[in-house]
Amino acid sequence: MSEANIVLPPLSATEWRILWGVLGSALVALAYGFYMVWKVLSCDPGNAAMQRVAKAIEDGAMAYLRRQIKIMWPFILIIFVGLYLMYTNLYLGNTSLALGVSLAFLAGVMASYGAGYVGMWLAVKGNVRTAAAAMVSFPRAMEVAFNAGTVSGMFTVGFGLLGATIIFLIFRESAMRVLVGFGFGGSLAALFLRVGGGIFTKAADIGADLVGKIEVGIPEDDPRNAAVIADNVGDNVGDCAGMAADVFESYEVTLVAALILAASTLMTPEFQAAYGSQSSAFALKLILFPLIIRAVGVFASILGTLSVRLKEGEQDPMRPITTGYWVSSASAIVGIAIANACYLHDPRTGAVDWRFTMVSGIGILLAILTLWLTNYYTHPNSRPVSETAIASKTGPATLLLSGMAEGNESTVWAIMLIGGTILSSLWVFRKEPVMASYGIALAGLGLLTTTGFILAMDTYGPITDNAHGIFEMAEVNDERASRSLSWMDAIGNTTKALTKGLAIATAVLAAISLFKSFIDEGQLNQLGIQVNQPKVFVGLLIGGAIPFLFTAFALKAVGRAAFFVVEEVRRQFRENPGIMTRKVVPDYARCVEIVTAAAQKELLGPGMVAVATPVLVAFGLGAAACGGYLCGAILTGQLLAVYMANTGGLWDNAKKKIEDGFLGGKGTDSHKAAVIGDTVGDPYKDTAGPSLNPLIKVMNLVAILIVPFTLHPMTHLVRGIIVCTAGAILVTAIALSHRGALVLPKDSHS
Amino acid sequence: MSEANIVLPPLSATEWRILWGVLGSALVALAYGFYMVWKVLSCDPGNAAMQRVAKAIEDGAMAYLRRQIKIMWPFILIIFVGLYLMYTNLYLGNTSLALGVSLAFLAGVMASYGAGYVGMWLAVKGNVRTAAAAMVSFPRAMEVAFNAGTVSGMFTVGFGLLGATIIFLIFRESAMRVLVGFGFGGSLAALFLRVGGGIFTKAADIGADLVGKIEVGIPEDDPRNAAVIADNVGDNVGDCAGMAADVFESYEVTLVAALILAASTLMTPEFQAAYGSQSSAFALKLILFPLIIRAVGVFASILGTLSVRLKEGEQDPMRPITTGYWVSSASAIVGIAIANACYLHDPRTGAVDWRFTMVSGIGILLAILTLWLTNYYTHPNSRPVSETAIASKTGPATLLLSGMAEGNESTVWAIMLIGGTILSSLWVFRKEPVMASYGIALAGLGLLTTTGFILAMDTYGPITDNAHGIFEMAEVNDERASRSLSWMDAIGNTTKALTKGLAIATAVLAAISLFKSFIDEGQLNQLGIQVNQPKVFVGLLIGGAIPFLFTAFALKAVGRAAFFVVEEVRRQFRENPGIMTRKVVPDYARCVEIVTAAAQKELLGPGMVAVATPVLVAFGLGAAACGGYLCGAILTGQLLAVYMANTGGLWDNAKKKIEDGFLGGKGTDSHKAAVIGDTVGDPYKDTAGPSLNPLIKVMNLVAILIVPFTLHPMTHLVRGIIVCTAGAILVTAIALSHRGALVLPKDSHS
Repeated sequence: MSEANIVLPPLSATEWRILWGVLGSALVALAYGFYMVWKVLSCDPGNAAMQRVAKAIEDGAMAYLRRQIKIMWPFILIIFVGLYLMYTNLYLGNTSLALGVSLAFLAGVMASYGAGYVGMWLAVKGNVRTAAAAMVSFPRAMEVAFNAGTVSGMFTVGFGLLGATIIFLIFRESAMRVLVGFGFGGSLAALFLRVGGGIFTKAADIGADLVGKIEVGIPEDDPRNAAVIADNVGDNVGDCAGMAADVFESYEVTLVAALILAASTLMTPEFQAAYGSQSSAFALKLILFPLIIRAVGVFASILGTLSVRLKEGEQDPMRPITTGYWVSSASAIVGIAIANACYLHDPRTGAVDWRFTMVSGIGILLAILTLWLTNYYTHPNSRPVSETAIASKTGPATLLLSGMAEGNESTVWAIMLIGGTILSSLWVFRKEPVMASYGIALAGLGLLTTTGFILAMDTYGPITDNAHGIFEMAEVNDERASRSLSWMDAIGNTTKALTKGLAIATAVLAAISLFKSFIDEGQLNQLGIQVNQPKVFVGLLIGGAIPFLFTAFALKAVGRAAFFVVEEVRRQFRENPGIMTRKVVPDYARCVEIVTAAAQKELLGPGMVAVATPVLVAFGLGAAACGGYLCGAILTGQLLAVYMANTGGLWDNAKKKIEDGFLGGKGTDSHKAAVIGDTVGDPYKDTAGPSLNPLIKVMNLVAILIVPFTLHPMTHLVRGIIVCTAGAILVTAIALSHRGALVLPKDSHS
Repeated sequence: MSEANIVLPPLSATEWRILWGVLGSALVALAYGFYMVWKVLSCDPGNAAMQRVAKAIEDGAMAYLRRQIKIMWPFILIIFVGLYLMYTNLYLGNTSLALGVSLAFLAGVMASYGAGYVGMWLAVKGNVRTAAAAMVSFPRAMEVAFNAGTVSGMFTVGFGLLGATIIFLIFRESAMRVLVGFGFGGSLAALFLRVGGGIFTKAADIGADLVGKIEVGIPEDDPRNAAVIADNVGDNVGDCAGMAADVFESYEVTLVAALILAASTLMTPEFQAAYGSQSSAFALKLILFPLIIRAVGVFASILGTLSVRLKEGEQDPMRPITTGYWVSSASAIVGIAIANACYLHDPRTGAVDWRFTMVSGIGILLAILTLWLTNYYTHPNSRPVSETAIASKTGPATLLLSGMAEGNESTVWAIMLIGGTILSSLWVFRKEPVMASYGIALAGLGLLTTTGFILAMDTYGPITDNAHGIFEMAEVNDERASRSLSWMDAIGNTTKALTKGLAIATAVLAAISLFKSFIDEGQLNQLGIQVNQPKVFVGLLIGGAIPFLFTAFALKAVGRAAFFVVEEVRRQFRENPGIMTRKVVPDYARCVEIVTAAAQKELLGPGMVAVATPVLVAFGLGAAACGGYLCGAILTGQLLAVYMANTGGLWDNAKKKIEDGFLGGKGTDSHKAAVIGDTVGDPYKDTAGPSLNPLIKVMNLVAILIVPFTLHPMTHLVRGIIVCTAGAILVTAIALSHRGALVLPKDSHS
């Protein structure tokens, strides 16, 4: 698609009504979010001790996000200017488009960051209120925690839908390109939040454990450990802000991709031949349908969250969440079917064209199957977790190998599900292959229809985790409430693990949907991306290697950041002997500051790799090779991300299973082996794995934005300068991130 | 290439002389191999105790290989008949070709198996003689060990070159297809030997350790452990027979690919236009040049092995091996340059066309760089190993994470080296792109020029390992000899690790070279493999997932097989209390038998996956999707194989470094952490990682053999039957390999 060729037909009165309806549902999502904010804030914030702990966590988390934006903005500014210059150069005279793309990029950054910010802001308010509610009743605590989680879901959905619709209304024909800018901004912010949050949370966690548990011998969440607040802050910045930003932009990017694909389908001669004089009116409907699906999703998510109610006396918090998910999925599919029946008729026959509901349903089915698969590989009662736990009998090595084997297996089935989704969508449109890509994009949209509910489910995780932590740290004496919170915390781990599996699937489907735009922008429709050509194959090799490089970066970054935490906690114990005797309160804020600074520093390398590598490949080896590069990155990104998320989740739950009494429980050799597995799995599932989602999307969007320029006539010198600059950035990034794995320098031990 | 189109010009007198010369050099390799056999066998076989231990190892290893062929032959027979039927069906009337392909397949199986058999046969004779020679002098032991290793190298090279040349002489125009059959046979045998050997060696190792070290508390290589002989047998069947068969067929496949590419280059209009009336004479030269390179390699390898001489009093066994490698590489490049200067002139100008030396040299350089890279990531004194060892101070989890991060990083550079090789070869032929594929194939050939030497270096590993083991088990009292052997053993570990890195690079380059044949056979030259098409992309996803599935299979298989070893060793200790008091000799043979049977049983699943998946994809999604599948498999296969080999090697040497006194040496917590890392790394580096090499090649060769049939007109029913059969085989394989990770059932512990 070159936007010069696309001429959208004028919107009819019906279409205008639909657009206003979509805008209206975005506002409904926001209004419902605000209502939840009000509901949560009006709850009892607990006693003074609890509030003090909660305040420390809140301050830390907010300080982190403020610092994050400070580190991000020079980077963002450079890209903003770069985009503007590139686009004014490419479309001489069309400075309004250049400005549009660059401003949309900024808006994307702010929206993604905003989604993370708001979600986390209420999470840190909700945690203490959940803890306080637990002292009243279990169902009450459950309600508060889930309501607080719902805020994140609703704001993400509301911002996403609002942003996309407004851009569409303003830019019309050029909206597609502007939306790519918006998506890129969102992805980049998500990358920073995900990677930074992931490094923060695990550095604080491992650092706190290494000194606290191993050296000093105090339990987890002990208030004498200076890193204990940082550990709780980490849950918020990683699982809450990072996840929201990540899912926000998958939500956005799948929408962008569907709009682009509808528009480019409209321009094909096959489509025009098939639908004759009706083709442009029908195409307009196809362009609007993704927005309608999103609007349906808002109401489906609200219905879902409304059905999450624990009955008085009921014990299992997972039951209402599962019910809510089914309600949300079922109402989404019903809503989509109704919209399809009312709106999308085959213009030639007048009959309802159900294929659009079918592909959206395939996407919703993919979400359900992905959740089921993740649950199978990570649920404490499933065979893989049980066998891995039993493997601890012969030591940590067999436990680790068993978990890795299961994790390797799980990622195979996850990628097969994605393959199956693509093939099914192809099959639905087998008679009109020209619409197949659009069908795949609708499946991607379907996968994210229930985003509002899914994010609520995810955010419930860190909120209950924190609530439990606050309760322990405030040393409240209430056995029953403590048990309820512990229970909710365990279920929160499960919901977090489940949404991780889904987040990577959305990233991959978003990337696949974007691929068609890349082909159009790179003018590769004729030749395609022929991976049998040596340069394209080399592109594939490079792309496939990047997620491995990224994983290495992430694992090492956690180690380096954890080192600073260890040093600080040691220093406080050494300089303030009163901490151990509980006479002095440790300086929590200093730990938060240190790990914030360390996490931010570690962001630069991965960020530079994500942006510079596609530029290097596109200008060095050509547009087609860059296509091969993207395919390689999507492939290994998906495989590694699910492998790490599931292996980590499996080890985590194998440990929990043993702690719940399996094989003798805590203190046994089996438990020690399982703790080792859990520690290895932590940066797997919380840092390296989730960082790959935004990585994949950022690289795709960068590629789409730059590929038109590789086709421009340019001298060898200019091309050489671009390649060398990208290469230099890459080398710098590698140099920044290469040294020092999870290692504490010798002198710190002597 | 369809062989019907290829008409080779008649061989001139010069060409006949060259072919006889190549045959002659194959015989020289074999003669030199026999000379080494005689030299080794004429050495002192040691005292009675040593001979008794050695006999047990020899019997076990030979019994394994005999059993292996029994398990293999029904599988081989089915494929033999299947190939014959497929080809008689495709080329009606041309039964001689069908018979040729099927017989070549059988010959390939036998040659690959034979290479493994002979190499191992002398290795198990050489180990005890090395041990005996160590009692005379260090240089003498070194000489015996390296001579015994050289046998493996020379027979592999000799068989490979002889087989390819004879087939070429017999089949001429159809030789290309027949050679693919030969390569497929070789790959399949290698797959069985690699996977089976890998499972055997690690099951015996882990099983012996779990009971011996952990439960009973006796040291490694203690003769009271019933699995101790099986452990030593494992070194031979895994590192010796498996590696030889694997490298044999990379050697063969790169040769096949270069011949095919030369022949198909000849048929292109571009080539004919460029070289006019000279084109067919020049093409014939290009076809023969790969054979010449191989002949040069024979002499280069012999020169290399001749220069491995430890001076009396010299201490470091690595020095002469490195010297030998340099001599071998340098003489290869000189020899190739001379052959190029004498033989390959540009027919249009008469000037020497040096590009062929350049690309071969790039291949040799890739070998050197790959060895350097492996050495950097696994050498005990390098930064990655040191840092990983230091990470043990904070426990096994940090050690594991550090090793994984370094391993992830290492595989990125390894794949970049391969990408660089491809791009450099393209650059060399930038003015004649039609010859670029041929150039890449020559780089692959170059990489394997020094195969004879490389295999000698590799086989040196298990020989010295066994020699040390025999010495300990025979309880010979000779401090100085023991120290020499321990030293040689450690260096053997390094050479084994180095060749592993090289073996996977050869597999990948072989696969890449074969890719052009796949395109030709699938008639995909026009459209190529467009990975932007959804079906091809799904093929890529499936292909990329297979190495992960295979890794899961391999890790679980080791666990299940180890379980049987554990049960048997326990049974012997329980039923024969005399074993512990050294009154009764344990039944070593029974352990060998059990682990042999278990390893063989585990072979079926992986073997079925390797053969059935390409069939499923090719018939289910089409030839182009099958191309995408192969690309995906090559990509993740390379990444995972190097990741696992290097991570495993790194953990192994981190442990060795600590055992040599670093951080306090044996018995410290650091050492315990490092032992855990080593145990996790064992099936990584010796089972799962190396199995991926033959997997990649088998899948490529299966695809080439079947792809012409996917183009045949066939009813939906026939296609459906084929797809369902392949699917059923796949499901069976998964069902066979799915259950039970590294887990010992509960009852065995209670």
